[in-house]
Amino acid sequence: MAPPNWRDLVKEKRERQQATIPKEWIILPEKLPSPEELNVIGFPESTERCGLLTPREIEITTIVKKGKHIGGTGVEALLKKIREGEWSAVEVTLAYSKRAMVAHQLVNCLTEIFIEEALKRAQALDDHLKRTGQVVGPLHGLPVSLKDQVNLKGIESTMGYASWIGDYPERNAVLADILESLGAVFYVKTNVAQTLMWVETYNHIFGRTVNPHNRSLTSGGSSGGEGALVAMLGSPLGIGSDVGGSIRIPAGFCGVYGLRPSYSRVPYSNCRNSLEGQDSVLSVMGPIAPSISAIKLFMQSIMSKNPWLKDPLVIRKPWNEGEYHLAEHGHGRSLCFAILWDDGIVVPHPPVKRALEDVKSALIAAGHNVVDWKPIKHFEICQTILDIFNAGATEDYATVCSATGEPVIGSMGLEVETEDDTPKEVPGISAYELWQVQKTRRDLRQEYMDWWNSSEDWARTGTGRPVDAIISPLAPYAAPPHGGNTYPLYTAVWNALDYSALVIPVTNVHPVKDARVARQEFLNDLDRMNHEAYHPQVFKDAPVAIQVVGRTLEEEAVIGMGEIVDKALDVQNSSLFPRL
Amino acid sequence: MAPPNWRDLVKEKRERQQATIPKEWIILPEKLPSPEELNVIGFPESTERCGLLTPREIEITTIVKKGKHIGGTGVEALLKKIREGEWSAVEVTLAYSKRAMVAHQLVNCLTEIFIEEALKRAQALDDHLKRTGQVVGPLHGLPVSLKDQVNLKGIESTMGYASWIGDYPERNAVLADILESLGAVFYVKTNVAQTLMWVETYNHIFGRTVNPHNRSLTSGGSSGGEGALVAMLGSPLGIGSDVGGSIRIPAGFCGVYGLRPSYSRVPYSNCRNSLEGQDSVLSVMGPIAPSISAIKLFMQSIMSKNPWLKDPLVIRKPWNEGEYHLAEHGHGRSLCFAILWDDGIVVPHPPVKRALEDVKSALIAAGHNVVDWKPIKHFEICQTILDIFNAGATEDYATVCSATGEPVIGSMGLEVETEDDTPKEVPGISAYELWQVQKTRRDLRQEYMDWWNSSEDWARTGTGRPVDAIISPLAPYAAPPHGGNTYPLYTAVWNALDYSALVIPVTNVHPVKDARVARQEFLNDLDRMNHEAYHPQVFKDAPVAIQVVGRTLEEEAVIGMGEIVDKALDVQNSSLFPRL
Repeated sequence: MAPPNWRDLVKEKRERQQATIPKEWIILPEKLPSPEELNVIGFPESTERCGLLTPREIEITTIVKKGKHIGGTGVEALLKKIREGEWSAVEVTLAYSKRAMVAHQLVNCLTEIFIEEALKRAQALDDHLKRTGQVVGPLHGLPVSLKDQVNLKGIESTMGYASWIGDYPERNAVLADILESLGAVFYVKTNVAQTLMWVETYNHIFGRTVNPHNRSLTSGGSSGGEGALVAMLGSPLGIGSDVGGSIRIPAGFCGVYGLRPSYSRVPYSNCRNSLEGQDSVLSVMGPIAPSISAIKLFMQSIMSKNPWLKDPLVIRKPWNEGEYHLAEHGHGRSLCFAILWDDGIVVPHPPVKRALEDVKSALIAAGHNVVDWKPIKHFEICQTILDIFNAGATEDYATVCSATGEPVIGSMGLEVETEDDTPKEVPGISAYELWQVQKTRRDLRQEYMDWWNSSEDWARTGTGRPVDAIISPLAPYAAPPHGGNTYPLYTAVWNALDYSALVIPVTNVHPVKDARVARQEFLNDLDRMNHEAYHPQVFKDAPVAIQVVGRTLEEEAVIGMGEIVDKALDVQNSSLFPRL
Repeated sequence: MAPPNWRDLVKEKRERQQATIPKEWIILPEKLPSPEELNVIGFPESTERCGLLTPREIEITTIVKKGKHIGGTGVEALLKKIREGEWSAVEVTLAYSKRAMVAHQLVNCLTEIFIEEALKRAQALDDHLKRTGQVVGPLHGLPVSLKDQVNLKGIESTMGYASWIGDYPERNAVLADILESLGAVFYVKTNVAQTLMWVETYNHIFGRTVNPHNRSLTSGGSSGGEGALVAMLGSPLGIGSDVGGSIRIPAGFCGVYGLRPSYSRVPYSNCRNSLEGQDSVLSVMGPIAPSISAIKLFMQSIMSKNPWLKDPLVIRKPWNEGEYHLAEHGHGRSLCFAILWDDGIVVPHPPVKRALEDVKSALIAAGHNVVDWKPIKHFEICQTILDIFNAGATEDYATVCSATGEPVIGSMGLEVETEDDTPKEVPGISAYELWQVQKTRRDLRQEYMDWWNSSEDWARTGTGRPVDAIISPLAPYAAPPHGGNTYPLYTAVWNALDYSALVIPVTNVHPVKDARVARQEFLNDLDRMNHEAYHPQVFKDAPVAIQVVGRTLEEEAVIGMGEIVDKALDVQNSSLFPRL
């Protein structure tokens, strides 16, 4: 029997997807922004142009962002209104569903759409609350969007592989079950990079997800669908995954928050994945959200359900309130942050430097110490995990694609699928050779830990402690044009070291503030090429974010320190531009 | 340049080792028990025959065992006497050193001996206590023996490989540093199986460690030196490692306690190992001791030093007193234990069955519920980890041995090294193939967890909870004759599942109580062969132990439940044979 033609499968799947968008929410072509209109972030709220969302729906979908640093607001404000009956779960679900549909038509961020099921679920939650006076859990009525790989019973998880079209999971991912038990409402799944091993978002089935701040730029990836959807406020909480930057890059490129938890903190069981069985550099699930409040709520509420009793790989470590309040970091008074200005390989573009300077001045103004981080061996560290991925990647991708003959994508810059874009095959290695790479990585992790431990001395922290957290660029650039996100080492190094890392948006590229700066000397060819690729107009409006990096399994402390950074930035911004 | 002759290296190393035994503690050949005298456990305390230990030294070396279930005794009583100045660290170190030398001459349990350095260290601790009135830490003055692979600066860690003779570590293992900071005194390192991947103890340099209860039987392995030494009370606390049973088998075969902690709970950094870089089925360090009190003290005091800030692989999980007091297990009232009578593959010998029955009746008498554990897929689970080890094992061993041409040992039953005992080489596999095995294991772990979670129903626990702990055989036999320990699946299955497991000695083989029982039907050939290998006289005096098995990272709860089991056994024994 001949294998099915993958193009036929894709065509049929796309038609099915199109049919899941409620007709009344389809925007007429003449009302859609033209391709030349790059920044579409304000479109959903524009009554004249979009007009789909009611004022109340706009309130419901923006409350999660507004006043995010004032106690009880952000996602908590949304949940409180549901809990107290002011807003029903149904109307909240409807508002986010509608806004997600608008977002999708602008930036192509979704894979699976199942609004009807979501509304039924929301209705059941409303009924429960009415009947019992109780919410089912801390996320009662919260719409949660899921990266395509998170299995939901009866809904495809293609991960952009034509070969997986028509393969319906028989049960939910453990994470989905837990979210549901907390009260979440699922309504959409979001777009990914084919293989997940690209830090942009493009695949044969669903095509490309673009950046809502500038559609000529990448949304990042592989969780680019989540990044773009959350940035458009089409979701108050999205779930992504990260093995080299796949949560953080789309979060930061799209101007929202994202947490890469440490290995095995958040359940991954029964999610689809690439390179399955690769037990050394683990992909992790984590939140992408419009504010830190949702990041914290996600971690805290998942931990409240003892996920280590549901997924055998999850570490038995409850949410630790003392760690969140920075018990090990002088209780958050006079912290010492260390800024990684560059990794010694590729110097970041001017807007990234400006963001780091903004963070530095904000933290100093808030009474903290800020020193310089001296990186060691970032290239060697990242090389080990690249070698680990490549140990079996070619065979992994080929095995999946062989079912239909679909090509493995070889570049994120292409617009059409051709046989020619197949990547150069990296030959696999033996298990023994893999162990040698893994041993090298283990030793580098020890070396980096020793280096961090000794930072009280070499960085002069002044706290009696080593550096509390590293402030790292997200990438050496803001979101680049499609196909241009080729240097993920600023995120991947923290995966290799398994450090917790929280992405915080700082600013947006401004052609005047972020003018080109001439440089005469370069660290190497990569550095020179990166410098030459910077043109302020090309990157216009692209968000710029930083990472707050803590130690392994320090998610609580990283969230706590992230709140301090975020608040310091807000204070600095409001003093520069006082609120009316 | 021709490689060094490994036999020459071994000869020179053995001479050096012999020279490290203080001359005054060498037992004259005519005073040593004859080879026909199999049970030598009482020899060190026999004044007529051994005569080396003073009554006070006998008290110092037995206090860690005596009255072990009465508050403040066991190892705590020893430490209290040091703390209060009744015994000096020097005399405690001297007593254990002397007893260790006696043990070594009877069962050949040591590799490295460095009494002089130990006494200097003990003197420094005594001086510190005298000067400051304070102990340096909770283990102040406690002699701790280390499995050969635990690096100490300037002392060889050959692991029984001739190729590693003369290779002196430049720094301590992280675990050694932490133990030292807690007040431990190192004085000996202990014998292992070449490659560590055998569950007996034999190598070309140091030869075989035998069982002190019956020297015709194996001490178990690969931490057989520790098992035998601790059983002879030549150490109050030994450190072993376990990737398939290597702590538990020697502990149980030698009649003492041993804990296999979960992956990455106890620091392993800068210990030597086999199959380094194999990141999937992790070997773990853990304690072997004459009583549970030392097991608990070890875990609690290691965790007090935040090992996750010193070894990047260690999980950030402090000692949890609530878990130790069984907060998640009804606070220890009316627990439900499930007994694994057999694994569905090989039925244990009569003494093992008797031990399980003893535990059952003791627990019922103590007010707990005892049900039957139904095992699922133990063979498939163990096969995955065997395949993972074999993925690169041949190349790993060959690489080490190639330096000198020493043969890889092919059977633990041989007494002489010949080229013929080289094992059949298992060909390695590719990294991608390895990942497929690891994926299978991951899925089996989920399946086993789901099975355990559902045990409230299928096992009728009566507690409203799933089974609290599994009571498992240690092996389908008590310590067998050398070369006969060929079925490690009763321990390896818990490594594969990463469950915490505590070994508790229950009884000793008694030729009358444990007579052969005829069987007509067998589960398979392995089962038949195991049955046929049982002859009560051959196994005479061999200790019989069980494992208390909890969930991943439940070390605290497993120790808490282990104390309950141990105490119930003591109560039962004392009522059967009332103490005078």
